[in-house]
Amino acid sequence: MSSTANPNGSRKTKPGLERRVTLADIAAQAGVSLATVSKVLNGRADVSAVTRARVEKLLHGHGYLRRTSSASSGSAQMVELVFHELESEWAIEIIRGVERVTREAGISLILTESGDRHSPGHAWIDGVLRRRPMGVILVFSDLEQQEKHKLRSRGVNFVVVDPADEPEPDVASIGSANWAGGFAAAQHLLALGHRRIGMISGPDDMLCSVARVDGYRSALERAGIGFDATLVRTGDFHVAGGRRGAAQLLDLPEPPTAIFAGSDLQALGVYEAARPRGVRIPEDLSVVGYDDLRIARWVGPPLTTIRQPLTEMAETAARMLIRMNDDPETPVNQRFDLATSLVVRESTAPPQKA
Amino acid sequence: MSSTANPNGSRKTKPGLERRVTLADIAAQAGVSLATVSKVLNGRADVSAVTRARVEKLLHGHGYLRRTSSASSGSAQMVELVFHELESEWAIEIIRGVERVTREAGISLILTESGDRHSPGHAWIDGVLRRRPMGVILVFSDLEQQEKHKLRSRGVNFVVVDPADEPEPDVASIGSANWAGGFAAAQHLLALGHRRIGMISGPDDMLCSVARVDGYRSALERAGIGFDATLVRTGDFHVAGGRRGAAQLLDLPEPPTAIFAGSDLQALGVYEAARPRGVRIPEDLSVVGYDDLRIARWVGPPLTTIRQPLTEMAETAARMLIRMNDDPETPVNQRFDLATSLVVRESTAPPQKA
Repeated sequence: MSSTANPNGSRKTKPGLERRVTLADIAAQAGVSLATVSKVLNGRADVSAVTRARVEKLLHGHGYLRRTSSASSGSAQMVELVFHELESEWAIEIIRGVERVTREAGISLILTESGDRHSPGHAWIDGVLRRRPMGVILVFSDLEQQEKHKLRSRGVNFVVVDPADEPEPDVASIGSANWAGGFAAAQHLLALGHRRIGMISGPDDMLCSVARVDGYRSALERAGIGFDATLVRTGDFHVAGGRRGAAQLLDLPEPPTAIFAGSDLQALGVYEAARPRGVRIPEDLSVVGYDDLRIARWVGPPLTTIRQPLTEMAETAARMLIRMNDDPETPVNQRFDLATSLVVRESTAPPQKA
Repeated sequence: MSSTANPNGSRKTKPGLERRVTLADIAAQAGVSLATVSKVLNGRADVSAVTRARVEKLLHGHGYLRRTSSASSGSAQMVELVFHELESEWAIEIIRGVERVTREAGISLILTESGDRHSPGHAWIDGVLRRRPMGVILVFSDLEQQEKHKLRSRGVNFVVVDPADEPEPDVASIGSANWAGGFAAAQHLLALGHRRIGMISGPDDMLCSVARVDGYRSALERAGIGFDATLVRTGDFHVAGGRRGAAQLLDLPEPPTAIFAGSDLQALGVYEAARPRGVRIPEDLSVVGYDDLRIARWVGPPLTTIRQPLTEMAETAARMLIRMNDDPETPVNQRFDLATSLVVRESTAPPQKA
């Protein structure tokens, strides 16, 4: 470890007089050099785990906050956008929204795939500390308490888009009205006269999935139709999950006359399961998606779906991050839910008389 | 301008003895401080245009090359991916390929939209010099000679994916076999028995479009069918362009029985133009796309198309860039063309007997 910096930068503070902790204080208390503290702050690898933990603990204990963001130091300004997966058409709608805002603001966009739905993990955090973006937009993922502190102590703000779990109260987030969307989807099918309505939900450890199922269930109950668990299957938000769930529902002794697919990609899976079974959409089976990806209007038949304003959600998240960076007084615990709406196309129709 | 650095770092070189030019030499010859030269190198804004031009000219004249890439300085390694537009589903296939390679290599991915099809422009170049990526992947765009020199003098390598124009011989690029793809599309329709085959090309100032049209024309000529310019329309690679071109072709006194759409999105435009006219696909009209985006298999009917390995092209570009960075002896003038292939689905059939 380098010892070029003076480790004895600590000064005694008068009792009762608040003084902001300096890195020199941290170094002195940790018994390491200032250079070492700086390495920990910047996510450099050449510090032992024990030393790193000691320094992090002191930074946390003292509530150390980097005064200036990387923005003001003249280096390139960057926002980091973190997906757990880039696999789907869903991602491009989010990227487009964030990119539009960052470009206008002259900020670069870093794109990262984390591979984990709930938390981007430790390797990622170290990378962020090295890259020093002005802020991070997490899609789905929340952060562990310790990771949040690491980011905050370096002046890196963060916002969660479409949080998978209920975000902690100290985290800014942008979601959409999932419950209302699920309710509207089921309502539309009920209004057409359907009574046996299946649902393929997204992963049931994701909040947005659960809210959509609850909306669907409430609409059924309000129409006097009991919730039937055999009509609800769990997917993965992808085509394969929709295909699997629809195959199970269509092979029931008494299959549903309509399926609410939980995502547009799952709806495409329903289309794929229906085709080889000779089930015609919408004559034999009505299908409602969720998201309104651009592809929804091009599939055959064009898909009735719940529009989730993904691009607007992403734009809002990026703007919020820039505001938090420009004005440190901006509250970090804001939560926005944008509205969802029903888009009727050609995949839904009244059920045929039995 | 700062004058803290010593502007007199130039030393006399013995005639005949080659010595690498230093920044101090450049500063002395330009009559500015070393700090100013450093600002120009790093794309900082606080240097007058005149000074900047003088320094750039000297850097160029001396063939100055930064010895170490940003990689070795311990800062975060980044690759920058530049699109002229993020609008389409096309982009996600490229992003996915680049991201896969950079993630494995522990490199961050910066995403930039330039808004211009042929060159990303001067504002972008200044941004890159500030961001200091290890390399740049340009989608479609080529660079002007001056921009290339700016990047090379800072040790920033670059690769062009799917070049819009014939790339200069000193530029690495990854394309695909566009001519062969156009030929295969027309061949497939000819083999089904079509004789009146329309085409909607992409923008005719883009090389890939021109090559596809030439392939189509050659297949027709080989089959003894003369090229008929009234059957060829120019689109924009998007749905709207396909819709417009198809509307014109379908409204001809003697419309074609098949259309080669030049891109999958244009093929969706053909679907949209056919629907209100009561033209059934493939019974009344066969349609062939180009790209094989994921959506091609989900549209109704599933689209016969020419598969262009976009994700593999992107992966190859990213790997090439990393190799150029790791080994400065790697030739920068490599050009790879990956193969295209016909994927037959349900949008093509023999023409109906008139």
